[in-house]
Amino acid sequence: MQMYEIINKKRDKKKLSPEDIEYFVSGYTKGKIPDYQMSALLMAIFLNGMDTEETYNLTSSMMRSGEIVDLSSVPVAKVDKHSTGGVGDKTSLILAPLVASCGITVPMISGRGLGHTGGTLDKLESIPGFKTNLSLRKFKKNLSDIGVCMIGQTNEIAPADKKIYALRDVTGTVNSIPLMVASIMSKKLAEGADALVFDVKLGNGAFMQKEDEAILLAKNLIQMAKRFDKKAVAFITDMNEPLGEAVGNSIEVIEAIQALKGKAPEDLMEVTFALGSYMLILGRKAKSFEEAKEKLEKAIKSGKALDKFKQMIKKQGGDPKVVDDYRLLPWAKHKITVESYQTGYVKSIDTLKIGLSAVKLGAGREKLNSKIDPGVGFLIKKKVGDRVNKGENLAVIFSNDLKKADLAKQEIKEAYHITKRKTNKLKKVLYLIDEKGIKEWDN
Amino acid sequence: MQMYEIINKKRDKKKLSPEDIEYFVSGYTKGKIPDYQMSALLMAIFLNGMDTEETYNLTSSMMRSGEIVDLSSVPVAKVDKHSTGGVGDKTSLILAPLVASCGITVPMISGRGLGHTGGTLDKLESIPGFKTNLSLRKFKKNLSDIGVCMIGQTNEIAPADKKIYALRDVTGTVNSIPLMVASIMSKKLAEGADALVFDVKLGNGAFMQKEDEAILLAKNLIQMAKRFDKKAVAFITDMNEPLGEAVGNSIEVIEAIQALKGKAPEDLMEVTFALGSYMLILGRKAKSFEEAKEKLEKAIKSGKALDKFKQMIKKQGGDPKVVDDYRLLPWAKHKITVESYQTGYVKSIDTLKIGLSAVKLGAGREKLNSKIDPGVGFLIKKKVGDRVNKGENLAVIFSNDLKKADLAKQEIKEAYHITKRKTNKLKKVLYLIDEKGIKEWDN
Repeated sequence: MQMYEIINKKRDKKKLSPEDIEYFVSGYTKGKIPDYQMSALLMAIFLNGMDTEETYNLTSSMMRSGEIVDLSSVPVAKVDKHSTGGVGDKTSLILAPLVASCGITVPMISGRGLGHTGGTLDKLESIPGFKTNLSLRKFKKNLSDIGVCMIGQTNEIAPADKKIYALRDVTGTVNSIPLMVASIMSKKLAEGADALVFDVKLGNGAFMQKEDEAILLAKNLIQMAKRFDKKAVAFITDMNEPLGEAVGNSIEVIEAIQALKGKAPEDLMEVTFALGSYMLILGRKAKSFEEAKEKLEKAIKSGKALDKFKQMIKKQGGDPKVVDDYRLLPWAKHKITVESYQTGYVKSIDTLKIGLSAVKLGAGREKLNSKIDPGVGFLIKKKVGDRVNKGENLAVIFSNDLKKADLAKQEIKEAYHITKRKTNKLKKVLYLIDEKGIKEWDN
Repeated sequence: MQMYEIINKKRDKKKLSPEDIEYFVSGYTKGKIPDYQMSALLMAIFLNGMDTEETYNLTSSMMRSGEIVDLSSVPVAKVDKHSTGGVGDKTSLILAPLVASCGITVPMISGRGLGHTGGTLDKLESIPGFKTNLSLRKFKKNLSDIGVCMIGQTNEIAPADKKIYALRDVTGTVNSIPLMVASIMSKKLAEGADALVFDVKLGNGAFMQKEDEAILLAKNLIQMAKRFDKKAVAFITDMNEPLGEAVGNSIEVIEAIQALKGKAPEDLMEVTFALGSYMLILGRKAKSFEEAKEKLEKAIKSGKALDKFKQMIKKQGGDPKVVDDYRLLPWAKHKITVESYQTGYVKSIDTLKIGLSAVKLGAGREKLNSKIDPGVGFLIKKKVGDRVNKGENLAVIFSNDLKKADLAKQEIKEAYHITKRKTNKLKKVLYLIDEKGIKEWDN
């Protein structure tokens, strides 16, 4: 009866009380409220919204549906970053060891691939032996031992979010600001960080395709972090082309290692340095972007960052030798090149199409239970603004199945829009948003 | 995937195509679409609405989800009436035999009690032996033999509505005009009538509590009937107090028989004659309200109407002797009077409360599987506008459980609002709405 009244309240644009919210979050998590009532409520929330107070209470109830990691015994600053997801986005793999090597603790609970976007956990698991399902006890131990640990959302962390997310995914209720904020924040608050850097992706390969929506989400995340006494900033970054070159799992791990060796594509490092610098600033290891960036560059040059990555791999059961010998990672049997059918400049890349094509190739899951093929993927050689000659390589496909590779080849060609007129490169970091407001990023 | 896109379409206020609507109606009926997706869609429809075209297609798909009774072999006019439900509303029990005795065929598919409102089927089944679950073959046979048959919604008639209705009932999506119109019309169109008289109840004991909403529903029903080439009119009638005196099952059957004997309360007959007259007018048995009313009164006086009721009871397996000997009907053990605690005039009656109280006493179902106690109920002796003395009877309770009767006594007292100042009786029939428009009813 109570759930029925809660649905009617939100349906009629009335405000839900903290008790209402606690009732449906805990009831649904415990299986006492059926899916069909929850999905009716989610649609009513999607269409009628939630104010800051309701979003705060939803976040709080979802966070408290599970354990909250207490890292107060770790004496250094704990800072994490969260990305809303994109194609070729391997920044977490680079940032966690890089920032940890600068003396910050990075407690990172990541996700799997979702829709057309890749997942940090899937990428890490392409490293032979690497485990992401550590217990929270082990998570805490690794954090105090080496300052970094990357795991998946255990059943203990915000189980309400896990269950609600699965339902949102099939009922058209994903892109709702209050539901997204509560989902992201409930997990991030439970993992024990003091400060958060958000990377809200914007563009044809992101969940947010309109600038105003991306900014609204970023502002809401920061506002919510503040209500829970966490420091936070958010970046709006471009997702109108894959980030870096690699799209896949082991192939993205290699690009991340290359980045830790100082040998990664410029666009990837632009985003990495923006996010990483603010992780240092929020963790009081630097006062300005310039100072922070210098520290990050130093950590790369000195090999400290790469060394931290090796330590992490070892601590989580993986083989740290992969860092020096990429042949230890899974590789696909076939390597197929995609040639340009014309001469000109790359005007745009349909990044959603690239992402979905990678999923079909086996880099992601088409169904909930699909198995990932860790060795497959793409190298995107030509980006927006690049000049390209007819017959020149646009991309390289790594595949274990020639038929699937053929389809991918076709799809990649279709994803490229090449024009005669010269085009410009895309700006990768667009805005920095903090408590005080929004400003264009011009570093 | 297709259901997901349909949800998103309606969520984003886009128009659903006939194919979309057919897809989810037939998919849900066949169990191929899960409840949680259907309830998300229903909430999106509730909040974003449906235009006339979509409502037409929804009605059509729901109607075609089952069998459509073909009564073209019955040579006389087939007219039915439908009420949106109220407390003490036994007009169907009176009208079906009364109108049939005037030479019209009345094919009536009725429902069970819903929420605080009573159901025609439950009332009929209090007659020993009376069967409402006849096959459609038997339904048609009875109609051609005696011109009247009252059954329940079989699995063959609009099964989509049956399933969708159950889901709406628990997901806060009942009071949506397009969903109500499609639900009502899909059943009524399937039963084979040529013309329909709608009774849209308005007031504190009805589902519609605002006049503009009741009128909107009525207009939509008429518009939809027209699109399916059915003649139709609608009345808006009062439900700010129980209709007549009896509230329950066997007790309402008795009041209906009394009405057929010409001995029923005035307010009940006012509604009965308005609805019944227009059933005759639509069936071309009369040209004016006055002419029609005279025919109905004659059918009562001559005993023809009562005789038709006996025929119907017999044809449906019941004992027609109940008409002459009410002791053959189920009676509750205890009869408890409810005395007024003050002297004055009845200003208002909380009819929802009366209805819910009757349900708790056993006259309706608290849960889907509850069993009805056919002998229990109330006689509401004082109506709005009546003078009442302290200690005088407001109502009589018939109960098989003294504890439940005590609760009912308390609730009935609370439902009455008695003031010192003289109050007026309620007008029972408020508006007549047809294709041409709406007019106040002043007959």
